[in-house]
This record gives sequence, C-alpha cells and structure tokens, in this order.
Amino acid sequence: MRTLRRFVQPLIRQALRDDIGRGDITTKTVIPPKRHIRARVYAKAPGILAGTQVAIWVFETADQRIHCSIKRRDGHAVRHKQVILVLQGPAHRILAAERTALNILAHLSGIATLTRRFVQRVRSSSVRIMDTRKTLPGLGLLEKYAVRVGGGYNHRMALDDGVLIKTNHLRTLTQDVSRKTQAIQAAIRQARRRLPGKVIEVEVTGLREFRAALQARPHVIMLDNCSLRTIRNAVRMRNRTAQTSRQPLLEVSGGVTLDNVQAIAKTGVDRISIGQLTHSAPALDVSLEVL
Amino acid sequence: MRTLRRFVQPLIRQALRDDIGRGDITTKTVIPPKRHIRARVYAKAPGILAGTQVAIWVFETADQRIHCSIKRRDGHAVRHKQVILVLQGPAHRILAAERTALNILAHLSGIATLTRRFVQRVRSSSVRIMDTRKTLPGLGLLEKYAVRVGGGYNHRMALDDGVLIKTNHLRTLTQDVSRKTQAIQAAIRQARRRLPGKVIEVEVTGLREFRAALQARPHVIMLDNCSLRTIRNAVRMRNRTAQTSRQPLLEVSGGVTLDNVQAIAKTGVDRISIGQLTHSAPALDVSLEVL
Amino acid sequence: MRTLRRFVQPLIRQALRDDIGRGDITTKTVIPPKRHIRARVYAKAPGILAGTQVAIWVFETADQRIHCSIKRRDGHAVRHKQVILVLQGPAHRILAAERTALNILAHLSGIATLTRRFVQRVRSSSVRIMDTRKTLPGLGLLEKYAVRVGGGYNHRMALDDGVLIKTNHLRTLTQDVSRKTQAIQAAIRQARRRLPGKVIEVEVTGLREFRAALQARPHVIMLDNCSLRTIRNAVRMRNRTAQTSRQPLLEVSGGVTLDNVQAIAKTGVDRISIGQLTHSAPALDVSLEVL
Amino acid sequence: MRTLRRFVQPLIRQALRDDIGRGDITTKTVIPPKRHIRARVYAKAPGILAGTQVAIWVFETADQRIHCSIKRRDGHAVRHKQVILVLQGPAHRILAAERTALNILAHLSGIATLTRRFVQRVRSSSVRIMDTRKTLPGLGLLEKYAVRVGGGYNHRMALDDGVLIKTNHLRTLTQDVSRKTQAIQAAIRQARRRLPGKVIEVEVTGLREFRAALQARPHVIMLDNCSLRTIRNAVRMRNRTAQTSRQPLLEVSGGVTLDNVQAIAKTGVDRISIGQLTHSAPALDVSLEVL
Amino acid sequence: MRTLRRFVQPLIRQALRDDIGRGDITTKTVIPPKRHIRARVYAKAPGILAGTQVAIWVFETADQRIHCSIKRRDGHAVRHKQVILVLQGPAHRILAAERTALNILAHLSGIATLTRRFVQRVRSSSVRIMDTRKTLPGLGLLEKYAVRVGGGYNHRMALDDGVLIKTNHLRTLTQDVSRKTQAIQAAIRQARRRLPGKVIEVEVTGLREFRAALQARPHVIMLDNCSLRTIRNAVRMRNRTAQTSRQPLLEVSGGVTLDNVQAIAKTGVDRISIGQLTHSAPALDVSLEVL
Amino acid sequence: MRTLRRFVQPLIRQALRDDIGRGDITTKTVIPPKRHIRARVYAKAPGILAGTQVAIWVFETADQRIHCSIKRRDGHAVRHKQVILVLQGPAHRILAAERTALNILAHLSGIATLTRRFVQRVRSSSVRIMDTRKTLPGLGLLEKYAVRVGGGYNHRMALDDGVLIKTNHLRTLTQDVSRKTQAIQAAIRQARRRLPGKVIEVEVTGLREFRAALQARPHVIMLDNCSLRTIRNAVRMRNRTAQTSRQPLLEVSGGVTLDNVQAIAKTGVDRISIGQLTHSAPALDVSLEVL
Repeated sequence: MRTLRRFVQPLIRQALRDDIGRGDITTKTVIPPKRHIRARVYAKAPGILAGTQVAIWVFETADQRIHCSIKRRDGHAVRHKQVILVLQGPAHRILAAERTALNILAHLSGIATLTRRFVQRVRSSSVRIMDTRKTLPGLGLLEKYAVRVGGGYNHRMALDDGVLIKTNHLRTLTQDVSRKTQAIQAAIRQARRRLPGKVIEVEVTGLREFRAALQARPHVIMLDNCSLRTIRNAVRMRNRTAQTSRQPLLEVSGGVTLDNVQAIAKTGVDRISIGQLTHSAPALDVSLEVL
Repeated sequence: MRTLRRFVQPLIRQALRDDIGRGDITTKTVIPPKRHIRARVYAKAPGILAGTQVAIWVFETADQRIHCSIKRRDGHAVRHKQVILVLQGPAHRILAAERTALNILAHLSGIATLTRRFVQRVRSSSVRIMDTRKTLPGLGLLEKYAVRVGGGYNHRMALDDGVLIKTNHLRTLTQDVSRKTQAIQAAIRQARRRLPGKVIEVEVTGLREFRAALQARPHVIMLDNCSLRTIRNAVRMRNRTAQTSRQPLLEVSGGVTLDNVQAIAKTGVDRISIGQLTHSAPALDVSLEVL
Repeated sequence: MRTLRRFVQPLIRQALRDDIGRGDITTKTVIPPKRHIRARVYAKAPGILAGTQVAIWVFETADQRIHCSIKRRDGHAVRHKQVILVLQGPAHRILAAERTALNILAHLSGIATLTRRFVQRVRSSSVRIMDTRKTLPGLGLLEKYAVRVGGGYNHRMALDDGVLIKTNHLRTLTQDVSRKTQAIQAAIRQARRRLPGKVIEVEVTGLREFRAALQARPHVIMLDNCSLRTIRNAVRMRNRTAQTSRQPLLEVSGGVTLDNVQAIAKTGVDRISIGQLTHSAPALDVSLEVL
Repeated sequence: MRTLRRFVQPLIRQALRDDIGRGDITTKTVIPPKRHIRARVYAKAPGILAGTQVAIWVFETADQRIHCSIKRRDGHAVRHKQVILVLQGPAHRILAAERTALNILAHLSGIATLTRRFVQRVRSSSVRIMDTRKTLPGLGLLEKYAVRVGGGYNHRMALDDGVLIKTNHLRTLTQDVSRKTQAIQAAIRQARRRLPGKVIEVEVTGLREFRAALQARPHVIMLDNCSLRTIRNAVRMRNRTAQTSRQPLLEVSGGVTLDNVQAIAKTGVDRISIGQLTHSAPALDVSLEVL
Repeated sequence: MRTLRRFVQPLIRQALRDDIGRGDITTKTVIPPKRHIRARVYAKAPGILAGTQVAIWVFETADQRIHCSIKRRDGHAVRHKQVILVLQGPAHRILAAERTALNILAHLSGIATLTRRFVQRVRSSSVRIMDTRKTLPGLGLLEKYAVRVGGGYNHRMALDDGVLIKTNHLRTLTQDVSRKTQAIQAAIRQARRRLPGKVIEVEVTGLREFRAALQARPHVIMLDNCSLRTIRNAVRMRNRTAQTSRQPLLEVSGGVTLDNVQAIAKTGVDRISIGQLTHSAPALDVSLEVL
Repeated sequence: MRTLRRFVQPLIRQALRDDIGRGDITTKTVIPPKRHIRARVYAKAPGILAGTQVAIWVFETADQRIHCSIKRRDGHAVRHKQVILVLQGPAHRILAAERTALNILAHLSGIATLTRRFVQRVRSSSVRIMDTRKTLPGLGLLEKYAVRVGGGYNHRMALDDGVLIKTNHLRTLTQDVSRKTQAIQAAIRQARRRLPGKVIEVEVTGLREFRAALQARPHVIMLDNCSLRTIRNAVRMRNRTAQTSRQPLLEVSGGVTLDNVQAIAKTGVDRISIGQLTHSAPALDVSLEVL
C-alpha cells in the first residue's frame, strides 16, 4: 500500500489542483469559513468496492483535519444505500475534495465490480482472469490494483516487466508470412539467451504458429483472437507434451466477453486476459451526503 | 490546442514513463536497433474519433523521428477497419509508444462516440448535452475536449469556474428542511453580491425549491433527479415569468440515459448534463498494425 | 486560505532555496548550532498589513520548530514600531528565513496600504476599486489577495476567468476604423452565444464605440483612458436605458491616480481598475529584531 | 545570459500558466484560429530598459512561431512612444502572452530606471550603488540583473555568497551591550579562520562598533543607518590606517534616498546599498499595440 | 539509449545546476562573451570507456551550439593521451560543463574498466560476471550500463525485477535456526504460486540450506560468502539432478576479488556477482584541454 | 544539517523510487504484511563513519514508523562488527529501504575514511587537505560533507563560489605561450576589479607563471602537477615577499597520493587538493542484519 501511495500521491495532488483551480468559489461564498460537517459516502448501486483508501488519501491531502472512518473496505460487496465512509471536518475542504475522491472511488470500484463478474463466471475452473496494459494514462497502477481487488491477476505491469513477443514484432522482423514460424522460434531463443532473468511469452494467431512456439518452449503462449476450436486444439497439443518437461502456460486474449468467458475457461487454458476490465468498466455510482 | 497541449504534455510523459519503465525489453531484445517500420492505426469498431492529435503527440514525444500522417481527424465518424493514422519511424520507439497512444485515443473516442449518440437523440430540440465534473484524475480537460468533439458542451471546468449551489451546500447551512427555501434565496443573493463576475447556478430537487430559486433569479437552475412531470412544471413556471426579464436557464441532471434523454429534451429544458459521458463511456476499439 | 497556501507553498520553498543557496554561512559560522532566540517583526512606517500569515508559513517552512505568534493581522493598520509577529525558535533558521519572510510581507503590505488609500478617497461613493492583471510573475494570487485585504476587489484572475474584448482584439479583427463599431457588436454576440457561462466585458475608447457596445448589451463596459467628460456622458447614456432591463456596469481604467480617483468616482461609474495597485506600490518598511 | 535563462525559464512557464489558466477564452472565441498579426511593444513613459530579452523568451515560450525583433536593448534609454519590440506571429498566442511579457519588462525596466537615477546622482564620485537582498520571491536574480543594467552593482546574491555579520547576529551572541565590540571582533576572526575562501563584511551602527570592527580587519564594514557625521568620521579613521596595509571598504546602508545620496557619496565611502532599488521601484509604463 | 537518456537527462540538468550554481563567474569575468574554442577530452590513464555519449549529452544540454565529435566509443580500450571527444563551441559553455561531463565519464569508465578486468580473469569459463544493487543514489542505471559495457551482466535492476529471497527475509520469518530450511522451501513455493511471471532466486549460506533450496526448485540459488569447497559441493549436487529436468543456476556472491575470481569460476558456477564493480571502482583519469 | 537535508531529500526519494520501482515483490510475497522487526546496521571493515544521519533519513522517508537509534555518529572510527544503527519497525519497509540507506552510508564513509588517512599523514604540518569539484552528479554536497567529516576542507562548492583561473582559461585567451604570463596577470586584475566580493585563485604549471601570478597578488596560487622542487622554490619565493603585505596562499594539486602527501606537506604549502578523495574512495563495507 505504501508503494501504491507513493505513486498515487502526485496524481491526487494534481487532481485536486485541477478540480479546485483557484478556489471553490461557491463554498467560499456561501458557507461560513469555520463550519464543520459530518458527511457520508454511500453506494447508489450494488458493486465491489475498490479505492476506499485512495478516497481517504484524497480527503486527507485536501485537509489533514478531515477525519475519515471506513465502513466498508476494498473487496467488499456493497448494496444500494450502504455507507462506505463517514467523514468529519471543515465543510470547505470536504466539499472541495468531494468530486475528486468520488471520481476515483467510482472508477476503481467499477473495475473491481466488472472483474468480479468475470471471475464468478469462471469460478468452476482454475483459470486466471487477467488484465492487460490497456489502462488510462496515469491510472495504470490503480486500475491494476482494482483488478486484484476484484479477484483478477495482473499481466505485465509495464514493458520492462517480462518479454511478450507480439505479431507486430514478428511483422517487423519479416514481411514474408512463410517465415513467420521461424521468426517466432528465433525470437523466443534470442530472448531466453539475453534475458535469463525474465519470463518469456509469445502471441500466436493460429495453430501453425502455436506449434512453432511450442517447440521453442517459452513460459507462456498467448492465443490471440482464436476460435474456441483452435483454443481446444492448442490445449490438447500442449498437454500431450507436458509429461516430459515443464510446458508453457496457455493464455487467451481478444474478444472475451461475459457471455463467452465460461466456454473459454472450459477449454482448459490457464489464463484469460481482458482489456475491457480496465478500459470499459462503467463507474460504480457513489455519492456524498452531508449529514 | 496549444493550451490543451500544455496540460497534456506532462501526462503523456508520465504515461510513457509508466508504461515503458526501465525499457521495452522485448523490442530491445528481438528487433535490430535501427530497423524502421511503417504502421497504421485503425478502428476495429465504428465510432467518433477524438484524440488523434494527442496520439500523434504521444508518438512524437516518444521520438521526434516518428512521422505521423493523419487520415481521419477528430469529430469524424470511422467505420470498422478504417485507417486513422499512418506512422513511419524507428520500430523500437513506435512499438514502445503504441499502447500509450492507443489507450488515450480509445478512451477519448469512446467519450466522443457516446456523446454523439446522446446528441443525435435530441437533435430535434435545441437542448444542449453537457458533461459534468465526473472526470478521471488528470484526464478532465481531455475528456471535456472529447465531449465537445462529440457535439456536447462543457459545464464548469473546475470549482473556480462559476457558482453552483448544491444540496450539500444547503444542508451545510441548515439542517432544518423548512428553512431550505430561504437558504436557497440567501445563498443566491450572497453569491451575486460577492461574485459579480461569475455565473450563478443552483441545484433544486423539487418544485418548492424551484419556485424559491426562481424568485432569486440565478442564471441557471438545475433540476436534480426530478420526474418528467416536475420538469415540465418547472419549465412552465419559468416561461410564465420570461416575458418581463431575462429568466434562468433550466438544466436537468441525474438519471439521464439514452432511453429517456429524448423525453427530457421535449420538456423544453435548455441543458441536460450527463455524468456517464465521461465516467462510463466504453473505449472505442482501435489497433496498430505494422505494415 | 488553504487554496492560497497550495499556490504559495512552492513559491516559499523556491524563495528560501534561492536566498539560502548552499547555506547561511554567516550564521553557521558565528552562531552556536543550538542557540534559540526570540525575535519580533515590527513596522518601521505606518500602513495596512497583508501577508502576515504568509510570513508565518515562510518561517514554518524553514523550520517547524519556529513558533510564531501573531500580534496584528492582515487588514489592520500598523503604526511605526508596532509589533506584528513574535517568533521563538532556533537562531539559525529564524535568521536564514528572515529576509524571505520580510520581503513578502513588505511587498503585500505595500499593496494593501496603497489600495486602502484609493479606497478611502472614494468612500463617499459606492464605486469599487479593482486591480488588473498587471501583477508580477508567480505573485499574482498573493498580490490580488493583498488588494482584497486593502478593501479592493479583484478583476479577472486569469484569461480563462471571463471575457474581456479589448482594442487589440478589435484591431486584430479589422484594420478598418469605420468598421470597429460593427466588430464590437459582433464580438460581444459571438462571446455570448459560445460562452453562456461567462461574464462578458468590452473595452471602448470613446463614445461612438461605447454606444455600439451598449446596444450589444455586455455585462460590463470598460472606458479606457477616457476624459472625465466622456465618462460622464457614458454614465448618462447607460442610465437612460436602465429602466427597461439589466444594463451593463461601467468601469474606468487607465491614468487613474490618487489625485483624480475621487472625481472619477463622482461620475457615477461602478468600477475603477488601477494597475498601479500591484505594479508600483512601494514596499512597507518592516524589520526583524532579535530580542 | 544562459545561466539567467535557466533560472528564468521555469518562472516564465509558471507565469504563463497562471495567467492563461485553462485558456484565453476571449481570444479563442472572437479571433479566427489561424489569424497572424504584427504588433509592437512601446514605452509610454521615459526610462531605462531591462528585460527585453526576457520578454522575448516569454513570447517564444508561448509559441515558437512568434518572431520578435528587438528595436531597443537592455540599458538603453527610451522616450515616450519609442518602440522596443516588433512581434509577428499567431494572434492567439501573442495576445495570450502579452500581459506576462509586459509585466516582467515593466518591472525590470522600473528597477533599471530607478537605479540609473541613483547612479547619475553620484557620478562625480567613484562610489558604487549596490542592491540588497530585498528582492521579491522568485525574482531575485532578474531584479539584480536589472540593477546591473541600470549601472548598479550586486551585493550578495544569497546567504551562501559571502559573510555579513549583522546586528541580529551580535544580539544573538550577547545581550550585554558592553560586550558587543568584543563580539564583533570575535565573529570576524572566527569567520576568517573557518571560511578562508569568503569575503567578510560586518554591519556596525556607530563609531564605537566601527572602531572595534576596524581592528579585526574584515573586507568590508557597513555603516547601518548612521548620520552623515558618523560616516565622515568613519571614513577618516579608515583612511588613517590605510597606509600600512589593505583596509576595509566602507559601505553605507539604510535611509538612502535620491535626495541624500549625493551627500553620502561625498563622504568618501566606497559603496552605498539601497533596498528601494528592488522593493519599491515603480514599473515603467509599457504597452503592446496590434499594428 | 533513448530510455537511458530519459532517465539521465534530469540528472544531467541537476548536475549542471549544482556545479554552475548562479553562474561560472571565472569564465564570465575573464573570457570575452562570444569566444569560440576547440577542445579535446582525452585519457590520462589506460582503461575501458563508458559514458562518452552521456558526456556529449552533458555538453549539448549545457548549450546546443556545442558540437561534439566522438573519437572513441563506449567499450573501446583507451591508452594514455588518446583522444576521446573533440568539442567545438562557445568557450563559456564548454568550460562551464567540463567538470560535470568529465565526472560522469570518469566514473562510468572506471566501472567499465574494473568490470573488464574481472571478465578477462574468467574468460576461459562461461561464467557471467554480474553487478549488484550496490549502486549510488541516482546513478544506478548508468552504473549498470557501464557494467554491460565492460562485458558484465546486470542482476536485478530494482526490487520489482525478480524475487530474491535473502537471509534477512528468512530471519524475519523465523528466529528458529532449525526451521530455516523449511522456511526456505515455503518461501520459494509461495513466490512461485503468487508471482508466476517472475524469476525466483534464493540466497543460501551453506550446504544444508542449499539442499533444501534445491528441492524447492527456484530458478537461481545464490551461494553467499561460501568457501570454495562448499561451492564445489553445491555444483556437484546441482549437476547430479540436472539430468531429469531444468535445474537452478548457481550464483556466487560475497568476498569476490580479482585474486580469487578465477578459482571461483573454475568450480563450475554460472554467475558471480560483485558489489565492488559499482561501489568501489576507481575513476578513470580523463581530462579536457583547450586546443 | 537542515540545508543539507533540503538538498538530500529529493535524492533520497529518487533513490528509493529507483530501487523499489513498482514494489519490493519479494518482501510483499514472503513476509506477512504487519510483521515488525529489529535490525542493526554494522561495519564489516574498519573506517570512519559519514552519512549515518542520511541513512536514518532514508529509513524515515521510507516509513515514518521506522525508529532508528544511532550507536556511532559521523566522524567516529568503527571497527569490524561494531554496530552503527539499530532499527525497529515494519519489516516490509526496513527491507525495502535497506540497500538505498547502506549504499549512501558506505559511499560517504568510504570518502571520510580515505580523507582521514590523508589527514593523518600530514598531521605534523598545518597544511589543509581539500577536496575538488570531482564529485558525482547529484552527490557533490554529500561527498563534500564526508570530506569535512574526515577532517578535510572544502574547495569551491560550485563555479559561482570563487574565481579559479585555470590553464584552460588562459589557453582560451591566448594561444601564444610567450604571452601567457601577461594573460595571467591581466585575468587576475580583471577579476579583482569586477568581482570585489570574491576570493581569486589562479592555477600555474611552473615557476615562470608562478612569478607572474605572485606579482598580480591573487588570494591563492595553485601549483598544478608541479615537482617537489618547483613547489619548494615557489614557497620560498612567496615567503620572501610576505613581510610587506598579505601574500597568496599556496595550493598543490595533481598527482597527490598517500605516498607523497607527506613530502608535499613538508614543503610548507598551505593547501593540498585531492580529487581521489571523492572520485575514487572505495566504499566502506557495511551491512544490515535482522535481529
């Protein structure tokens, strides 16, 4: 949490600065300067909470005299009208920080809520629901935290965090489709030789490439936008070789929805990565009410 | 655009820093250092573009040698597979910046696309579709730009940008419900006296409050979470007094959806503000392909 | 005050850094390291105080162990030798921060003192003495605060804070003098249509332009460098139309001095804006003395 | 100039950011986006220019496409209506940067103008007119540059830039007035021993202290708020010992005005330091006009 | 190199700022302002170059008009008096940047030189010479780059870059020595389960711990401060199991010197990590001479 | 110490950020989140401590709950196994900050240890051992502090901190060797005239230049890379003139080692400056052990 805060604190300051600008002129004009209030943050729709602690950091950054007591923590399910935080402190500062705190809480809880829905769809299998690098600028670490809160796992945190050889890398190496399988194997081997301390993953788009990748033995093979049938075949091929030595994990990516995730899980793949978790999760409706 | 860039540039740097970390180890390991490529960014779903120029800034920030030519500009509708940008430059840097550029373009285009859908639902009226301050930390100005691209209008940019007296202000002033109408009028008058250079808006939740607000003559009255019937009554009351002098604009907020926005527009209100535009717009699916 | 501090704190840090550099070598060399002192900050000339709290922030930023007790607050008149602050704490840090604290206090009090003199000259009228954007880089918010302390009002805080159509805008639109009145009206209308949430002011330099502006009904008309006679005529024309609807406020700007401000006020204008308040106010003489 | 720019550039960025805020809404609304203009910056009062290059940096920072040609440089005297700069470029950016550029130019030229007046009063002697550390936060280096432009010399740039033992140091060391002369000598000796690479100056308030200081042989002795008679006596005492070895320079500080500076110079002191140069110089009136 | 520059550029700016301070007063005073010079940077002792490009960045950051041509590149051996860079540009800026550029070049070349000596001692084996996290604050990435230039390999770049379970972790988990072997195995398994995307290394201090670690099958086992005999036994134990499946790499750390590194290499371990490479490499003597 | 901390704090934050990256994954994975530990930092080799307080700042910056008690302070000699600090606090944060704290402590103690060795070699004379500007980027102030701790003195802190006319300045002024002595004298005089508040030093490389310098009477003359014989002659020449007035201090620089420093000291020079103190001091071996 400390490392997270170190990353989040500049964002909180920036967000407060952006939203308050040269001052909350409404509050300064209509509310007496020393007025203290109690207020509560509550859910207006059901969902999974994420970001309650971040919301508290926002209020505390706005004014150290704001006292926050947490009623429901990250990972908990809330129902409509359930209270999440109770605040006490100077009216001026609580009202000035309200929107920034709620915006973050709503966004992260939206991600956790959507992740949880995916996780529950596949709970009968041991597959892992994973996020992608499709996060918003400046918010990646928070969004990936929300995925974990929802029960998902994090894929690479950044481009330095593991090797992932994608189709665009292979197309850069060769325009000649017939040599693509060679390129896959060469790339995997080169990565293993030069980066012994890194996990190596490769993206394939069909069985021919998959077979080539399998021979070069990366740690993970990602099946990108493949049909269920292709996925099933890939799982079978992988399992056949699994007796003799440690075999690659299989990951499915592309076109995964709440509707098809269960079918994909049943193929026996190890991981399903879903961009939607972070780039298209609707916000959870949360609100602040002065008591 | 210059002022926007000034705000966006630190975000771009931060996002590239976050995503590249200590280096794109895959590309550095498998792609020869001086390789140049051509690539295109294209849509994988229909929508309205916003953020093409920002995406170009991302690539140019990553490396000045990347040359971007724009095929479809902000505000244009794209269809599946239509090309948005064509890039040329060092493979290492294009691939390192790809995700950051696409993440922003996808998010902003998602907002513009949703805004456009709302705008089209109400095109037979003169009502304005407006955003709210429910934006993501660090992304507010960009998200509000995307709303404009989609045909919407911006509400307050920040808390210093106009007076908006909300229920929480009134509750802070008085717990006594019977005195709420008095509080509304007092707050409006105080704001007018002390902030002659500012537009004054007040939020009401029913007709009784509305009537009180109307008498105090703010510039705008927002009807928060009111029924269609209440809205219609409010419009009628406002119009009745409109002969004698400039009367407040009416704004509807809360619970607006693509399904009910047309009915709300027909009541004759002037503005409809919608948080969903910025906090829950799904990303537009865009992709980069090496040519 | 909190929003102000947020803006001022980086300035305080920078100013201390600039003035202390690699260390206060005199104090480090001649004063024993743990010596504590009491000291007082006092006025050496009469004036109106502004910036006492900022001066305290400077000392507290330099060292949290410095205890400041405030004897006369912002807005109070001080006489020669009257004590403003009493300090207690480590000699090293009080002496290192002294100059930075006094420089700010002297500058802001100088502005408040000059503003108060203007305000007192016009106290028999209801005219408002206002500042301009002629502030020093980095100090604008503080200087505008000092104007308020002196009894003045703030004009636009920045270029985003209201529309002010000036002669340079009109000259940019047309070189043809005969079309200037048309340009004034067109600009006002365009601004009203596109920026419904903003107050609109226009600068005119004579009666012909004034008349054109009056017809387009902006919120404020500024008479720039006009003679008393022109001002009087403008007031009369404005008042004649005032029966039927809300009419623009009139503002005088340019060439205002302590000598002529009273005569200008008597014409019946609503606002007088004075650059001198912030760009040419002599510092108030304040000093720190170890007790 | 490079080192100066390095210090000034962040200030310029901050000042533009502060003044432009979220955008120059007037210009954006009434001026067509691609309009280019020519404009000139000219003096509306006579004075000495300082900061012309800084003003150019402001315009260039606002937009690299603004082309500035300089007509009169720092150090030159201008008369009413004389042109200082001619600008050419995008109207939007010239008008957005105008105020920030002029504010700096007006302030620095005001300082240079006042300095020049002091320098001319003493031109028949070889005395040096010097500034003090009474500068504004963030502007010190620029203000001290303007003093040099006006013909003055810079005193210490910061607390690390030479030893200056002041009355407050001595009061910190001893409350006992009778031991003050001992304290002066001890402090000078300690500084010389521990800081062999630094020039040592001591502030005295009367002849008794002066005599003590003279014996300890610092590099400079400052006569603070002394009468002309005391100054004359001090000069005489210093000169008497000057045969045998290098003797301290004498500096006068406190209460120096345009009226008495000539008389002070005639006493034969070497340096006169004047806070007013930087803290109370009225701005030079400069203006920008679209051509 | 681009990613490296992104990290290094703030350091370069800071270093120039620190070293130049308020200006290079010597050069400004004694050298005419527009004087241009040619100068060369050359070695005064034999060694391996690292940081030539960084030195160029320093000069270019100081002034874009400085033109640098590189005579010997990173990784090349230089002899006494051999020229490394030839510079051309404004005397003021070359002399102001000289020390900062040379300090970095000397430090990094010192590291590359020492690394090369270690690498050459073990060239008959396939062992890898690796660095540690014993780098200087702010300089880690540069120092690790210099190790690569010298022929070494980089260990973890940071604490997020792979799992390394050390004795201090185990002591935190249990004070009971008899349970240490269990703790080792538990920790390895937990890390494997929770961080499937990371390489797992464990530090052991003797054969008993080594055996326990071997059973839990981490990717790497580090033998910390072990005798040659222990190392040899460990290699033998590891090799015995190597037939059946991929076995851990062995790494030696602690007490490695130029004298014993060859003997350690001969035991058959895979990696030797050496703190001295970065924390105690003497600088290479390099100098700048005006031509 | 406060001024030092102001400079050091950003470095500490940066170093922790660099070393922890996105989080200490080992500790987070294998150590229970709330585990508290005691640990000690101790020496593994004899030396002089410097940086103990900085190390404490590192731990406190990482987590305010870490309590550090200091056992041996800066300037004290430690023996093998002697305890320097005892720490108590959250295991996660102590282990995450360990390396950063130790790296700084080891580097600074290495410098203090080497400085002390030089100082002890010359303790029979009154010569001062001084550092140079050959420090590492970002670490200069800390390294110069460590030199003071070891008993050395600081030369110029930066290029603004005194005039040092070097051979490169003279070569820039004239290529004609026969005019070098004139150039020396001219440069010294110019510096004295224009920078009366600064100490002036000149570097000479032989007796001819020395004689010229002596006549121009700078504050210090540096004999760069001169033979013992030359140094002795220079001392004699200087002393001969010393009767009549204050004569320059003599400084030796270049090629100074532990072997020859005593002989140099015996020549009677006043200062010996040694780059090796900061650029090539081996780190002191220090370690952290969980108790």
